[in-house]
Amino acid sequence: MTPADDRARWREGDRAARPRRLDRLRQRLAQEGLDAYFGVRPENARYLTGFALDDGEEKVAGQSGYFLVGGDEVVVLADSRYAEQAGEQCEGARIEPVYRDFEQRWPALLAGLRSIRERAGSAPAVRRLAVEAAAVSHATWTSLSAAEPAVELVPVDGWIEQLRAVKEPLEVERIRAACAVADAALARLLPRIQPGVPERELALALEWEMRTNGADDIAFGVACLGGPRAALPHGSPSDRPIRAGEALLFDFGAQIDGYRSDMTRTLFVDEPSPRDRQLYELVILAQECALDVLQASVRSGVVPTNRDIDAAARDVIVEDGHGEHFGHGLGHGIGLATHELPSLGSRSPEAALPTPSVFSVEPGVYLPADTGVRIEDLVLFDLDRPALERLTTFPRELTVVGA
Amino acid sequence: MTPADDRARWREGDRAARPRRLDRLRQRLAQEGLDAYFGVRPENARYLTGFALDDGEEKVAGQSGYFLVGGDEVVVLADSRYAEQAGEQCEGARIEPVYRDFEQRWPALLAGLRSIRERAGSAPAVRRLAVEAAAVSHATWTSLSAAEPAVELVPVDGWIEQLRAVKEPLEVERIRAACAVADAALARLLPRIQPGVPERELALALEWEMRTNGADDIAFGVACLGGPRAALPHGSPSDRPIRAGEALLFDFGAQIDGYRSDMTRTLFVDEPSPRDRQLYELVILAQECALDVLQASVRSGVVPTNRDIDAAARDVIVEDGHGEHFGHGLGHGIGLATHELPSLGSRSPEAALPTPSVFSVEPGVYLPADTGVRIEDLVLFDLDRPALERLTTFPRELTVVGA
Repeated sequence: MTPADDRARWREGDRAARPRRLDRLRQRLAQEGLDAYFGVRPENARYLTGFALDDGEEKVAGQSGYFLVGGDEVVVLADSRYAEQAGEQCEGARIEPVYRDFEQRWPALLAGLRSIRERAGSAPAVRRLAVEAAAVSHATWTSLSAAEPAVELVPVDGWIEQLRAVKEPLEVERIRAACAVADAALARLLPRIQPGVPERELALALEWEMRTNGADDIAFGVACLGGPRAALPHGSPSDRPIRAGEALLFDFGAQIDGYRSDMTRTLFVDEPSPRDRQLYELVILAQECALDVLQASVRSGVVPTNRDIDAAARDVIVEDGHGEHFGHGLGHGIGLATHELPSLGSRSPEAALPTPSVFSVEPGVYLPADTGVRIEDLVLFDLDRPALERLTTFPRELTVVGA
Repeated sequence: MTPADDRARWREGDRAARPRRLDRLRQRLAQEGLDAYFGVRPENARYLTGFALDDGEEKVAGQSGYFLVGGDEVVVLADSRYAEQAGEQCEGARIEPVYRDFEQRWPALLAGLRSIRERAGSAPAVRRLAVEAAAVSHATWTSLSAAEPAVELVPVDGWIEQLRAVKEPLEVERIRAACAVADAALARLLPRIQPGVPERELALALEWEMRTNGADDIAFGVACLGGPRAALPHGSPSDRPIRAGEALLFDFGAQIDGYRSDMTRTLFVDEPSPRDRQLYELVILAQECALDVLQASVRSGVVPTNRDIDAAARDVIVEDGHGEHFGHGLGHGIGLATHELPSLGSRSPEAALPTPSVFSVEPGVYLPADTGVRIEDLVLFDLDRPALERLTTFPRELTVVGA
């Protein structure tokens, strides 16, 4: 496990960073003429309040972790099961008990909150509340509207996600640590990869390596896909045994103190065919071209857009005649969520890359029902230092296993 | 792993049961004057269409698995990543591709659907659509309303959950199998429970026992809580080493073909104090009283309410002066979700128990910052057979370990 002093340092760093994060949110609220913020996404709660739910726990947590940001305080809702945890994790926040009485308590919760906007000659009551409309259920929205009709609920989306896309040094440190755990786990798995072993067994072994060697949890279910199944851009490991001469794709990540890693390696069980070797080299080249554009940006200080980076890799694949075999975007941001901003795709809303930011660069070529190759690394893109750092350090060279 | 012929039999059973499930939903729609149903909950999709997402996968699946039930067909949405899987799993359903164009395609999706209600002299177009309002986001609701204003979205909640509360024999079979995996895993863990071992290590070992001995996955994160931490009605395993003389609470479950188990045992590391022994006997007695009421109902054929069963256990604890130390409900239904209907609590909406149904009976007594005892078994309550069957077979007798 991660040393306790690292955890204490991270906790202290988050505590120190939280006022700045909240200031940015309040600035945005003021700009948009809103009085306060109501959030329900677990990652956003963790970022702004410290309240942490394990993966999947939000399904049973009810309103625990829902939060309000007003002019001078942060309020975290917690039912009796979570009150102690909230008190421990949410330094400086006011913990408000809720359970089945959420709607009934809503007017009082809002009345107890001060607007982030000063109003000349009037008490700064909350009248216009920003709400995470893409995360809150319609039923909750409707019942809160009815419970306090005097407060207008204003749908907002992606505000805190935009803040989270710009990473603080201690956030990068935890992602880097999660990358290192995943790198080491795959290295230790290599000798176990032999023809005849089912995908599911290897996936479980890889998960186990991560969770017994530093990961608090995995970032998402391990993908281990052999042969034609490597062509599935999404796929769960099956009972299919891996076979000699086939590609074997691992997509996996670790989690440390809430921060995640994500990497993909396509190995070959015994010698690949010349065709597969060419596909592999094509994907490597595509990734290098994207990294070159990022590197050039670090040197010049000129910020590229998300689409620029996607295009740099995609052009290489298109030119080779495989454009239709690269159906997904080039990458995604990562942090408290496995998939977050920025989104690097040809159809992503165009935007300058945030900096410092951490995102995946993961070109792939998939021949349906035949084979697939994807290589995915996380990179830190930082114009301040300035630096482009590859956080995934497992070799990218074509690796033959089980021979 | 579970033998392939079991899986084939379950798949065939689900396929055969689905028309009945759909008929019941259509009857309810007709009763309430609604034309069709739009669902987004993964468990409901699996129950009615066969489309299965792994836990947590809904976060990245987008609209894949959203479904529509019309008069003569079922439509399952799937983006390109999930199209193949949907085609395989959703026999008889029409698979409709969606991705970022969901709102744009919405009017055409609805126009292609026929109402479940026959209308004299008019084409059976969909005009009033039932929508899972407690699961769909407000942002989605708003954009779908705007995309096709001619179709009224009508919020409904719990309809399919009520159907799912009544279990079919093959559903019970899978829950029973998941219970057996969990029972055996705890039995194998016992020799490893020794003073000094951290909670987290035991939790991981227990998870590993389940996942390498028949479970497709765990049902939820394993709780392993020692000493004063056993008083937390919710709690993640920590680095705290377990200690002699303390209670050690395990709350965990397995998953087989989507169906889950859930059990709690409170063990004692070395001899418990007389006080702890009394608490344990109290909790056992409370559980027995609840089971007695269920057994009496099976004999008489008179259906009890959810609150009757909760009260039977709670009264025992209250009479012993520990009423305030039993802060949660007595139990919950289980199946494709770990927590589903029926809800057995003193504040649950009163309702007759469904039958056949499977639910937990889990009284607990928690002394804050001191100790806690909970015993949780799953039972099958079936007035048709008639029978009350305890699906959790691990002994309930006070168990001393690590001595």
